[in-house]
Amino acid sequence: MIIVMQASCTDDDITKILAFLEAHHLTGHPSHGVEQTVIGVLGAPGPSGSPTSIGGINPATAEALEGLRGVERVLAVSKPYKLVSREFHPDRTIIDIPVPFSPEGGLHIGSDQVVVMAGPCTVESEKQLMLTAEAVRKAGATCLRGGAFKPSTSPYSFRGLGEEGLKLLAKARATFGMAIITEVMTPTDVSLVCQYADILQIGARNMQNYMLLDEVGRQHKPVMLKRGMSATIEEWLLAAEYILSQGNKQVMLCERGIRTFEKMTRNTQDISAIPLIKHLSHLPVIGDPSHGTGRRDLVSPLALAAVAAGADGLLIEVHPNPSEALKDGAQSLTIEQFQDLVPQIQRIALAVNRDVALTPPLHAPISMKEIVYGN
Amino acid sequence: MIIVMQASCTDDDITKILAFLEAHHLTGHPSHGVEQTVIGVLGAPGPSGSPTSIGGINPATAEALEGLRGVERVLAVSKPYKLVSREFHPDRTIIDIPVPFSPEGGLHIGSDQVVVMAGPCTVESEKQLMLTAEAVRKAGATCLRGGAFKPSTSPYSFRGLGEEGLKLLAKARATFGMAIITEVMTPTDVSLVCQYADILQIGARNMQNYMLLDEVGRQHKPVMLKRGMSATIEEWLLAAEYILSQGNKQVMLCERGIRTFEKMTRNTQDISAIPLIKHLSHLPVIGDPSHGTGRRDLVSPLALAAVAAGADGLLIEVHPNPSEALKDGAQSLTIEQFQDLVPQIQRIALAVNRDVALTPPLHAPISMKEIVYGN
Amino acid sequence: MIIVMQASCTDDDITKILAFLEAHHLTGHPSHGVEQTVIGVLGAPGPSGSPTSIGGINPATAEALEGLRGVERVLAVSKPYKLVSREFHPDRTIIDIPVPFSPEGGLHIGSDQVVVMAGPCTVESEKQLMLTAEAVRKAGATCLRGGAFKPSTSPYSFRGLGEEGLKLLAKARATFGMAIITEVMTPTDVSLVCQYADILQIGARNMQNYMLLDEVGRQHKPVMLKRGMSATIEEWLLAAEYILSQGNKQVMLCERGIRTFEKMTRNTQDISAIPLIKHLSHLPVIGDPSHGTGRRDLVSPLALAAVAAGADGLLIEVHPNPSEALKDGAQSLTIEQFQDLVPQIQRIALAVNRDVALTPPLHAPISMKEIVYGN
Amino acid sequence: MIIVMQASCTDDDITKILAFLEAHHLTGHPSHGVEQTVIGVLGAPGPSGSPTSIGGINPATAEALEGLRGVERVLAVSKPYKLVSREFHPDRTIIDIPVPFSPEGGLHIGSDQVVVMAGPCTVESEKQLMLTAEAVRKAGATCLRGGAFKPSTSPYSFRGLGEEGLKLLAKARATFGMAIITEVMTPTDVSLVCQYADILQIGARNMQNYMLLDEVGRQHKPVMLKRGMSATIEEWLLAAEYILSQGNKQVMLCERGIRTFEKMTRNTQDISAIPLIKHLSHLPVIGDPSHGTGRRDLVSPLALAAVAAGADGLLIEVHPNPSEALKDGAQSLTIEQFQDLVPQIQRIALAVNRDVALTPPLHAPISMKEIVYGN
Repeated sequence: MIIVMQASCTDDDITKILAFLEAHHLTGHPSHGVEQTVIGVLGAPGPSGSPTSIGGINPATAEALEGLRGVERVLAVSKPYKLVSREFHPDRTIIDIPVPFSPEGGLHIGSDQVVVMAGPCTVESEKQLMLTAEAVRKAGATCLRGGAFKPSTSPYSFRGLGEEGLKLLAKARATFGMAIITEVMTPTDVSLVCQYADILQIGARNMQNYMLLDEVGRQHKPVMLKRGMSATIEEWLLAAEYILSQGNKQVMLCERGIRTFEKMTRNTQDISAIPLIKHLSHLPVIGDPSHGTGRRDLVSPLALAAVAAGADGLLIEVHPNPSEALKDGAQSLTIEQFQDLVPQIQRIALAVNRDVALTPPLHAPISMKEIVYGN
Repeated sequence: MIIVMQASCTDDDITKILAFLEAHHLTGHPSHGVEQTVIGVLGAPGPSGSPTSIGGINPATAEALEGLRGVERVLAVSKPYKLVSREFHPDRTIIDIPVPFSPEGGLHIGSDQVVVMAGPCTVESEKQLMLTAEAVRKAGATCLRGGAFKPSTSPYSFRGLGEEGLKLLAKARATFGMAIITEVMTPTDVSLVCQYADILQIGARNMQNYMLLDEVGRQHKPVMLKRGMSATIEEWLLAAEYILSQGNKQVMLCERGIRTFEKMTRNTQDISAIPLIKHLSHLPVIGDPSHGTGRRDLVSPLALAAVAAGADGLLIEVHPNPSEALKDGAQSLTIEQFQDLVPQIQRIALAVNRDVALTPPLHAPISMKEIVYGN
Repeated sequence: MIIVMQASCTDDDITKILAFLEAHHLTGHPSHGVEQTVIGVLGAPGPSGSPTSIGGINPATAEALEGLRGVERVLAVSKPYKLVSREFHPDRTIIDIPVPFSPEGGLHIGSDQVVVMAGPCTVESEKQLMLTAEAVRKAGATCLRGGAFKPSTSPYSFRGLGEEGLKLLAKARATFGMAIITEVMTPTDVSLVCQYADILQIGARNMQNYMLLDEVGRQHKPVMLKRGMSATIEEWLLAAEYILSQGNKQVMLCERGIRTFEKMTRNTQDISAIPLIKHLSHLPVIGDPSHGTGRRDLVSPLALAAVAAGADGLLIEVHPNPSEALKDGAQSLTIEQFQDLVPQIQRIALAVNRDVALTPPLHAPISMKEIVYGN
Repeated sequence: MIIVMQASCTDDDITKILAFLEAHHLTGHPSHGVEQTVIGVLGAPGPSGSPTSIGGINPATAEALEGLRGVERVLAVSKPYKLVSREFHPDRTIIDIPVPFSPEGGLHIGSDQVVVMAGPCTVESEKQLMLTAEAVRKAGATCLRGGAFKPSTSPYSFRGLGEEGLKLLAKARATFGMAIITEVMTPTDVSLVCQYADILQIGARNMQNYMLLDEVGRQHKPVMLKRGMSATIEEWLLAAEYILSQGNKQVMLCERGIRTFEKMTRNTQDISAIPLIKHLSHLPVIGDPSHGTGRRDLVSPLALAAVAAGADGLLIEVHPNPSEALKDGAQSLTIEQFQDLVPQIQRIALAVNRDVALTPPLHAPISMKEIVYGN
């Protein structure tokens, strides 16, 4: 930590700061520059194995220093996160997810294989879900997305089928041999969602719902943490740190666009966050070009861009009939568009020395013809 | 709702859209302009007294239309909220809060009286809370703020005293005759916090925690809904609509700054939101210059600006010793600074034909000298 | 300057950085913390009286350091501006502008008197300008605004009357005894505009048009520098530093709103910039609530907020018939609204121990009745 | 154009608006909805071949309408630009630039060939420029970038070599057979820069310097228009419209990142703007990952992402010794990094069915060994 003093500070101000530091078991090293004095602060090592202080300095102490007389600014030096950091865990994290019928033993998110997750925004009916699942699986997706609990900006919008939606996802999982990712919105639903999902999704609006982060941190289930609408990279990593600090190390991060002044897209997809997170952290990163852009005509180019920039996977909204979707119709690909996209993803993946984790062709005992979907 | 067609759209595209509208019980009126066709859409009146469709049009239908061939954009015409809207409820809402020892029968938030709420960011100890409460009450505050459950960006920061903090707030309430405002972070804590608080605070990070909004919407307690860090005015009003739609009409909105590119302030306080909300809604609006700026030296000028622009109240962080605060030390006023500020607020309030709701002088049976604070 | 090293840096990296610093006549002081090493850098004093290096360190050197192996970040310590800084010039700057018929010898911008500048966005015709000038002067404005050269987002919009507009402003000046402020958009127009204007306005889009800044910096005319749409406070002060560094010390800064995600207002007026600039700089600060909000119904509350927060003046668009304005009709006050506003500004100014610089009543030799306006 | 009336508007308000429209030669068609009335406005066709009105409606009229009583909002329907629009010019624009020694007759920007432009931020010396030019040409770049006139946030930073820098660029052009792109900052320099450059660059800070846009619009030289730091897509296209409306059709657009709240990157590169511009306009789009990210470690992944998303070219900063660069050292690739990058760009280009326009191998009469560079 570095304390930058005001040009007008007095010797007495400096003396008091040094005393304050000492009282907090820290050591201050003043350097008197041409115009200003700066004080370098060294912390004491924390209890072994415990990250409860960062660089040996309590975050509240840093805040308090900003309020002392003569102080202009306090500059943090250490990163405020540890468990998610690449510096303290240089090997990349690979999250293994067993999937029925998978010859490769399932998905390995964070490996050289790019994972394609696709499906409708929201589970609307058995027919809608099964049709989409079958189509995206045939096209190459290995993980099925679909919301049973849906956050909606308006209280008058559709909020999801709840547990009935989860059961339909489980049926699709058993029928088509796909992993399931679905959102959980509140701590009391976590155990229910864990019964059905392979990956728990934390939505953008809940990125700083700390009690929810704590709760999924106590599970033995992979978690996908979406970036908050206006979360900095640092805040996003700190939210992941919440989950890891409760014991759950299977966390992947999903870039889904940030809020900017631009009005033509729903969000601005921050593609640079993908390689940046890969530098800073060992956790896998997924791109969501559907929410990232909010426009069907931009989903495919942004999906390719994400993979070119190093994404470990993609999360894409697909709907058999987007104009009838109950939510997010404008950003859902049609099945045909998704079928066109997967081979392009594959080509980009090969160009960056990776591969797409493709499902095996559907074969017995799954006979598509015999499946009769409900409504 | 207005559908703007692409310049290149065909007659067939238009015919299909009109059929789609008809299938959804809507009527389309095309106008063929010099370059483009637009289709005005009229909805059917919703069930009497029910706001489940807006302008008679389901939000999902609007979204779905954006996905149809030939459509360039869909423009909403009606406001997506109703219960919070001034158009449908022209009289301002005044929230009455009984306060012990108050000769005026308590606070009347939204009236001509500007309400000053002050106190520490976080309840840290009995001594810290009681000292601050006594001081801010003497200086003129009528409502005491203080967090018992605290959201923290880092999992390693102090997260509040929990119920113990609530009990200390209750003690301060009984001792000094102030209303209490404190944050609730998760649905399962709502009933507990209701036992102690006069106003439930929903923090910025939880503005779109819909299950929490639902839960406070079912209470008979005033709620202060802080604006999310990157929430638009419309999203903020829709979040309030969640609460009102559950039956709780006692909602006030608190502007606490939005996230922008500027780095010198913690947030950018959007003062224009104060008169804008007053135009759009009947709900009271509170300014929070502490979070709005994040800098002690800016709190007082922004407090005055908020009142000049029409705020119904202020929420201000005060700490007896900011440099020892466990959170937000850099943005807390000292007691002396707060004492200086209240008369200035009073002068500005009078200049805009309002008044500050001031507490009566402390007198028997409350004898300050005899109070002994714990740690 | 502080160099923060990566946790993984080697001794060799540090040695090379110290050698690099030495080669640039700087001294490095490494401190080895628990997790990371930081290097404090001290510069050599620059040539006496010359601000060409900041804290004795060339800005390019700091940038270059960021590229060296093992470096995580370079933190600036010194402020990058000097001439505009309050630290190096503690007394506030007061800009005196002589105005015909003024009993007080003209305007004193930056003094205890709040200056009200008003007028149409654009000079459209003699009649429009003279009517507005007469009305705003009678209502209390002492400075007349009006654009002769207008920046327009679209090439198909009205771009101003040019020199003809300047001549009309000069006529209004002579007739009503008001100072004139008008925009200059390109270096070759500066000498022309100087012949007619009392204050040269640099618009938001030109805040970083450095050749224009240089050119107005060589004049003996007060300059109002508007904040760029997405300029940080620091960039804004650096743009002012350009002007001062050419010799022109008569600079005032104008906050006119910044670009954010909010769509209901044209910009988000950053009221906190007003007291913040007053802390950082000795230059006067003006608020522009017309561009700051873009909505007529928000102009008055934001004008009051700006004065409450410490603004030295206001710049307000007024049009005798806003619905016929060639530009910015939606944000122009009517004459009646402006007449209502001035006494409110006066009340707020008094509440913060200031006053409004009001014009004396119009009297002979100016006889309004006899003025005949052209078209 | 659509006028949305307030729910509380009166019949008289509507009558007055219809009269106002008629007076402006427009026709209004009111539709009375359940809650609100909207008025569709049809314009008159403009003079043949003239885009001076958009959809037959003057932009100022739309603005003025927003100020009328009873009006809630005015929604634009037509796009405000024409000459740059794909709707009115469906074929993509290909800009041909002759380059010495090129077997393919030069560059064809906007064709299936991806063009790589590289070089130093700033021309610093003959040696620095020639070394870089030789290296990037050998690695595959066909166009050399380098600033002779440099915008700098601080008045104390290096501002470029001026015409001397242009002459060095011309020498590099003649020696290595590369096209030259360099920035022009002010109208009076345009004719000078035209003598040396193959492409005139308009920097981000000057995107709305309208007199500069007018001036380059009168030249017969290709122009690269960088996106302003906080320019919307629409404003950016309107700035290009300025250039085309003066007669110069050879314009390419360059995405160089936008300003957001994120602090870890210098800007947020808006990759979605690339395919979006390709949808809206026929003009070529270039990606600038150097300014887009500001970090050397992110330049290569973002370069690949831009090409995957459809960019027609890349603009990349390369410096033989970034730690000695006078500007932008932290974002310049080393020569080795650039050599590694070009084959990766080539692989991505092939994956999206394009190719990279590569220079032929250097051969006689250019003998590298014999070139002796000055300082």
